Order: sequence, then structure tokens, then C-alpha cells
Amino acid sequence: MDRPPPATARRGVANLFEALPSPETGECFDQLLHCRNLRVERIVSSAQPEPTWYDQTQDEWVLLLCGHATLQVGDERLELGAGDYTFLPAHTRHRVIATSAQPPCVWLAIHLDPAD
Amino acid sequence: MDRPPPATARRGVANLFEALPSPETGECFDQLLHCRNLRVERIVSSAQPEPTWYDQTQDEWVLLLCGHATLQVGDERLELGAGDYTFLPAHTRHRVIATSAQPPCVWLAIHLDPAD
Repeated sequence: MDRPPPATARRGVANLFEALPSPETGECFDQLLHCRNLRVERIVSSAQPEPTWYDQTQDEWVLLLCGHATLQVGDERLELGAGDYTFLPAHTRHRVIATSAQPPCVWLAIHLDPAD
Repeated sequence: MDRPPPATARRGVANLFEALPSPETGECFDQLLHCRNLRVERIVSSAQPEPTWYDQTQDEWVLLLCGHATLQVGDERLELGAGDYTFLPAHTRHRVIATSAQPPCVWLAIHLDPAD
């Protein structure tokens, strides 16, 4: 989804919890930083996540900041609460199975693209 | 400070807010991930930060998760609250001037090392 990043209220500073979108289904993705092979993303989930399997070329570290969620990583289910984080090396098949409605799930995802 | 990383309670999942240290002065640094040129760190500040100037070779993206803090970036002071983030390109001189006692400041720092 093509959305502007969170507003920057002060020079060089923005807030991760401001201007949170409220998707009705799936997730909203906002890129907070793109620097060389690093991309930092905020993800806000609806209570009806898209159970798409991801098989990515990039390594991903993901932190759940609010809410609770169920991830499937390969054959394993991970129950995540606020503050939980996990690492998904490139080509680790994973998908989001369930996400809480209140509070909504807010994630920080760090993507490390493959070397050129 | 050489400390073990936060305990991993479940396979592949750990919690950023578990086993928080309580430094009396300065900061405690815990590396959560090191993958290629990426390092993800949790920083917990005491209420008496070390006002050391940092002039780093790596790019850094930093997010304050709890507490409030004052950073000096070059000649500018940034007042940060929970959820605030900023980007510090390599060789951006910065230091921590003040950090709250309660709640203590918990930061997530993403370091992107220079290319080889």
C-alpha cells in the first residue's frame, strides 16, 4: 500500500505510534528508513491478517511492539506478545496467522537485503 | 559491558523487556542480533547517562521505547519520548545528555556497519 511515512513533527525525529493506520484487512506497511541494504518498516495489522506465505530474499528481524499475534514459521507456530522478537533468515517461510484487534498489532521489521 | 543477551524463553523468540538490567550509571548494551553488516542492540540507560560524544563509522537508527531522553546531535538538542526515533548517519556526532529515571530509558539501536 502506497502511503506516506509517519509525519515528522520535529527536525529529524518522528514517532512510531503517531498516525497509526487502521486497516480493515491485511496489513499496512510504512517504510521508516532505507539506507544501503537496510530497510526499517512499521507494520500495522488488522484483525484479519492476510495469511500469505512469505519466502523472502532478505534476512528479517521482527519485533512486535503492541498486541499479540500468531506467526507460523515453517511447521512451527509462534505466539508473540508485546516486546517479543524473532529472526527470520532469508528464505525462512513464514506467515501471519492471527493478530489481535485491541490493541492492534504494531510491528517493527528490519530487512537486510542480500549483498549485490 | 559483557552481559548475556536476554533469555530466550521459547524457540527463536525472546522478549525485549525481559531481564532488564538496572545500571547505576551509564548504559547497558545487549546485542540482540549480528547478521552481516547489521547489529541490533538493546540499550538500557541509568538516570545518569555517560555524556560521551559518539562519532561512529556505522549508520545508526535509534528508537526510544520507554522513558524520555535528551540527545545532543551536533549543535541540536532532541527531546525524545516513547516511540520517537531518529537516524544518525555515520560520523554524526551525538551524545546522551539526560535520561529519565522512571521509567528507565529502553532503546532499540540498529547499527549498519560500513561496507568492507
